[in-house]
Amino acid sequence: MAPGPSWAMDQTETPARGPRIRTVPPGDDRQRLVCPDCDWVAYENPKVIVGSVVVWEDRILLCRRAIEPRRGFWTLPAGYMELNETSAAGAVREAWEEARARITPEALLAVYDVTRISQVQLIWRARLDDPAIAPGPESLEVGLFRWEEIPWDDLAFPTVRWALEAHRRIPTDAPFAPATNPPEAPEGL
Amino acid sequence: MAPGPSWAMDQTETPARGPRIRTVPPGDDRQRLVCPDCDWVAYENPKVIVGSVVVWEDRILLCRRAIEPRRGFWTLPAGYMELNETSAAGAVREAWEEARARITPEALLAVYDVTRISQVQLIWRARLDDPAIAPGPESLEVGLFRWEEIPWDDLAFPTVRWALEAHRRIPTDAPFAPATNPPEAPEGL
Repeated sequence: MAPGPSWAMDQTETPARGPRIRTVPPGDDRQRLVCPDCDWVAYENPKVIVGSVVVWEDRILLCRRAIEPRRGFWTLPAGYMELNETSAAGAVREAWEEARARITPEALLAVYDVTRISQVQLIWRARLDDPAIAPGPESLEVGLFRWEEIPWDDLAFPTVRWALEAHRRIPTDAPFAPATNPPEAPEGL
Repeated sequence: MAPGPSWAMDQTETPARGPRIRTVPPGDDRQRLVCPDCDWVAYENPKVIVGSVVVWEDRILLCRRAIEPRRGFWTLPAGYMELNETSAAGAVREAWEEARARITPEALLAVYDVTRISQVQLIWRARLDDPAIAPGPESLEVGLFRWEEIPWDDLAFPTVRWALEAHRRIPTDAPFAPATNPPEAPEGL
């Protein structure tokens, strides 16, 4: 569910209320978004997108977007990471929300910066546990595509192509993935 | 510079103004932080910490914290990622701010979830370009430590130890690191 701006939306709109004035707060060294009504400072930081390249046999799960931006184009199941979840748990949640897909994340496949919209994208490689998939409220349709069937000209975002190519390029049994939390502390300490 | 809460601070304090009421906004499916004065919704998402294991010959850069939490304990140069920067650029900025260290990030070494405080930590392995280092405003002192000299009992956070151990464990010439942005689009598209 993404009631806020979608995961690739530009963050340029100026709200009519709430924090909306850019100024340097006392003691700070850069402009922040401040509410002119109550002086509350909204520290804005990059947002994390969590998603996955979901594999079933020789096919990859894609979702056709039912929402803007890029409505009608194909994407990976992905969305804003929520508070108090791991990136893997977020990828599982998004796969369910967008494609009713039950997945098991296997390795962190890719980390992308999209500075224009201040995003960090954490893309997992995941196994589809059950091929019964269905569109969630943010998808027009979902499908399992062989490599040569992928609608390359109708992908929603550059990082979708990058992640698909990374999946193709990086062997499943690669001997080194980035270190992630130790097994005894999957959610940190 | 970290005028906001420090990178490991628990986010439990209730402000006297601004968004401070937890309620489910219309059309949403979970509680958000809402301003009772103007109904502005503060979508809270995990924050990204960027930092690095900085290497000079057989030594690693550590900083003794001048600020809470964990004042007086040793940490890696790390802090909140800012808008419109890559994680590598953020690691460079933090190394300068905290240790006046000029570094060159070489590979993304580790990605940690700390769900309790809703953090994702992206830790780079970096080369120190010049051993002239000095404490920045958030450090009491900085130093270059051989492995056996690292003050293990006085490290500030668990992820500092994890990242040091990951650096020790993962070979410098590891054949697979997570895919990051393609060379032609270091800041995303």
